[in-house]
Amino acid sequence: MDELMSNPSKLFESKHFCSKYDIAKSSLSEDIKLINELLHDNGSGCIESIQGVGGGIRYIPGISRERIKELQNELMEALSDPSRMLGGKYLYTSDIMFDGHFASNMARFFTQKFSSLDADYVVTVETKGIPIAAQTAYMLGLPLVVIRREAKYSEGSTVSINYFSGTNERIQKMSIAKRAVAPGSKAIIIDDFMRGGGSLKGIKDILGEFDVETVGIGVALESRFPEKKKVSNYCSIIIIEEIDEENKIIKLSANNDL
Amino acid sequence: MDELMSNPSKLFESKHFCSKYDIAKSSLSEDIKLINELLHDNGSGCIESIQGVGGGIRYIPGISRERIKELQNELMEALSDPSRMLGGKYLYTSDIMFDGHFASNMARFFTQKFSSLDADYVVTVETKGIPIAAQTAYMLGLPLVVIRREAKYSEGSTVSINYFSGTNERIQKMSIAKRAVAPGSKAIIIDDFMRGGGSLKGIKDILGEFDVETVGIGVALESRFPEKKKVSNYCSIIIIEEIDEENKIIKLSANNDL
Repeated sequence: MDELMSNPSKLFESKHFCSKYDIAKSSLSEDIKLINELLHDNGSGCIESIQGVGGGIRYIPGISRERIKELQNELMEALSDPSRMLGGKYLYTSDIMFDGHFASNMARFFTQKFSSLDADYVVTVETKGIPIAAQTAYMLGLPLVVIRREAKYSEGSTVSINYFSGTNERIQKMSIAKRAVAPGSKAIIIDDFMRGGGSLKGIKDILGEFDVETVGIGVALESRFPEKKKVSNYCSIIIIEEIDEENKIIKLSANNDL
Repeated sequence: MDELMSNPSKLFESKHFCSKYDIAKSSLSEDIKLINELLHDNGSGCIESIQGVGGGIRYIPGISRERIKELQNELMEALSDPSRMLGGKYLYTSDIMFDGHFASNMARFFTQKFSSLDADYVVTVETKGIPIAAQTAYMLGLPLVVIRREAKYSEGSTVSINYFSGTNERIQKMSIAKRAVAPGSKAIIIDDFMRGGGSLKGIKDILGEFDVETVGIGVALESRFPEKKKVSNYCSIIIIEEIDEENKIIKLSANNDL
């Protein structure tokens, strides 16, 4: 089952494994049942069986509720270190976003959350969300599309928009390669951080220019304020409640509404 | 052994597994021998046993020679599509660099290649190399450091250098967060593409400012020309021999000297 597990979300015809291992379909079903029990115990996803023509089996990575709690606690511990305060409303988070353990566990969560949405792409904007988005795309078996801050020659023809970023308090630009997305498709957006949602709305808008619908939004960190966000229907893992510079305390909470 | 395999390159004391599964050290050795045979057959790495005080076992992801060949052939097939030609010396490669299957297999190769170098970080420069570098860092159990093109406020104090990029034929800038690296440490650089090596030399130089030694360089694609590169001791997977725009042919070769 190495082939199944190392090609997450890829649909295999049952007969592929039956002929590969020379077993009957009934004994394959038994094997899958056993593996599913193991996966369930580990809380690391499940094997989905799709019946009928065009059906088959596929492995969907996931994460148990206990491991989500653990992940949230680990993230809050790492984020609460006062030396992360950079002044203003900023926290240093690059090391966390680029950590393979955190990135892959957050990706497992987003995969579980969004796997039923039948999206065609995972989309992020450079730079800090790329590892989480790349892992999520891999686990969902989807292409990753990275929106650039500047149009690059190596992207071919691009479409650009300007948007207002509350985080940076200025007009920013983003560009997407025309060949990266097809009209009429569906996208999941993954990013590292959301304050007011300006950047996420920018991504939604630029995808909208291509007639690409945003069907899900996942962010690692969310700022409690401003409470009114420019996008709705997003899902965050950790909420930054307050950065109290005077007392050097970073107040965080776990999103329990997952 | 799920715990061992899902924490690549992390050293576990043998007694951790002996007490977890309530088995003797000799039967653990037997189990490891069996798993190693399986890993060897799959060509997906090995379990390394380190004897003595501070020793233990760890899983190092890898890739067989056959699978490297397959990977190179798949990459060459994808890259040779003439619609990738953007004019000048440019090819569109973002979809390949952001593909989870390609990124994780290239990362397996770099992990196998560099695992004995005892590096402290994997370093890349934004943007296209990030997924491969992130996977390599995860497999090597090392932090990923991403050098930015522009100094960002959210990076805290940074050090910047200017360097000449032959690819873009202009002076470019790169910035690294001071807190991301410690003096006296060792780094492996992973990037998506090298033409003359100016960008890689820039990364080496900026790391040198922090007294960080570059012990290995891995790139996915290398351009045959210019033959004289600004860095030595690098390793590439695919070589772009020639982009013949008139006849719409992209000539590629596999690096056999891996």
